[in-house]
Amino acid sequence: MHLYDVSNRTVVVVDILRATSCMVTAFAHGVESITPYAALDACRIMNKNGFITCGERDGKKVDGFDKGNSPFEYMGDSVRGKKIAFTTTNGTQAIEKSKDAKKVLIGSFLNLSSIVKYLLFGENSVLIVCAGWKGKVNLEDTLFAGAVVEKLKNHIEPDCDAPLAAQHLYNQAKHNMVEFLSTSSHVKRLNRLNIHKDIEFCLTCDQYNVVPKLTQGILKLV
Amino acid sequence: MHLYDVSNRTVVVVDILRATSCMVTAFAHGVESITPYAALDACRIMNKNGFITCGERDGKKVDGFDKGNSPFEYMGDSVRGKKIAFTTTNGTQAIEKSKDAKKVLIGSFLNLSSIVKYLLFGENSVLIVCAGWKGKVNLEDTLFAGAVVEKLKNHIEPDCDAPLAAQHLYNQAKHNMVEFLSTSSHVKRLNRLNIHKDIEFCLTCDQYNVVPKLTQGILKLV
Repeated sequence: MHLYDVSNRTVVVVDILRATSCMVTAFAHGVESITPYAALDACRIMNKNGFITCGERDGKKVDGFDKGNSPFEYMGDSVRGKKIAFTTTNGTQAIEKSKDAKKVLIGSFLNLSSIVKYLLFGENSVLIVCAGWKGKVNLEDTLFAGAVVEKLKNHIEPDCDAPLAAQHLYNQAKHNMVEFLSTSSHVKRLNRLNIHKDIEFCLTCDQYNVVPKLTQGILKLV
Repeated sequence: MHLYDVSNRTVVVVDILRATSCMVTAFAHGVESITPYAALDACRIMNKNGFITCGERDGKKVDGFDKGNSPFEYMGDSVRGKKIAFTTTNGTQAIEKSKDAKKVLIGSFLNLSSIVKYLLFGENSVLIVCAGWKGKVNLEDTLFAGAVVEKLKNHIEPDCDAPLAAQHLYNQAKHNMVEFLSTSSHVKRLNRLNIHKDIEFCLTCDQYNVVPKLTQGILKLV
């Protein structure tokens, strides 16, 4: 990220497994707002203010938190109308690093087409911020970037070859992303946690028609 | 690179188009040493010390230098037994940034199998430093990294998904790398400079059996 000046860009933060997939799911089920926290303690304290405290460290739910990092926890009446305080290993850190951008959106395969449509009619140049795993590259976030590039390919002029590389990977993977990702580091790590059902859901395209956007540190629907 | 501690690693620096391809070609044709310089002026001054001054900025030969950045300039008697001072837009900068590594090797498709063999019998963990273009990702250097991963796949444990992504891209590209790269930013830039012949040569595997290695700031054969 340090290579890019984001002040005049629309940034799409993506952490497919599973932070941004959870956020998109929550908004699709009527959550009022999500406030991302990079630090655990800052998040924890928010339950005193009536927030639901949510998130994970190293893929596991945090002791004392209301919810973990499975999208299936963010459906139904338990989130409708609620305010969420959220912290995760990678996703919320990536949002924190993106906060000086002109706009910050939350992307996932679940709201892929909604994000693409929003970008298509936007005025800014775009940076897809792949949260990765502890600051390093992961394949599933790269595939999301590739999906966006593939859908916008007739409308963009890439700055470098990273979008092209992501597009090639997405086109190789798109017919069976679960299979394609089966050897990736993060999927192997998560499969050890027995959350194969989460992985399949997070790799499903266009379940929801929502675009979460950060305004003054708080995510709400556009 | 800032994500990795290189002090206990073997680093392979790669700038396929065209710095490290030139260096490998020069060593295969009997050059005595190559001293890489990040700065133009530091390189230029070395002609007073009997060095051949070589390199490019933005893909073009530097005014007053003896040679540019085409591998075909580094063949035959004009380099045999000579000392070279070399500076390029990306490649020599990547070597400079790698200098604290345990070992620094120079890689290209031209000496791919030699590098792979050296790594296979080495003791250290490995980082492939893709020079890219002005600090950003390019596809051709990523393909080289992918080729190394493909050849060593039964012997490595990746730190993150970047090697896996590179391997997927290489396997997609390997049957016709020139065609695969035709839409990449750097190849488009270089084709405008009419050096298609250089590109084809730089994408040829295993022309030479040499492993250049950096010792106290100077490249020599191992």
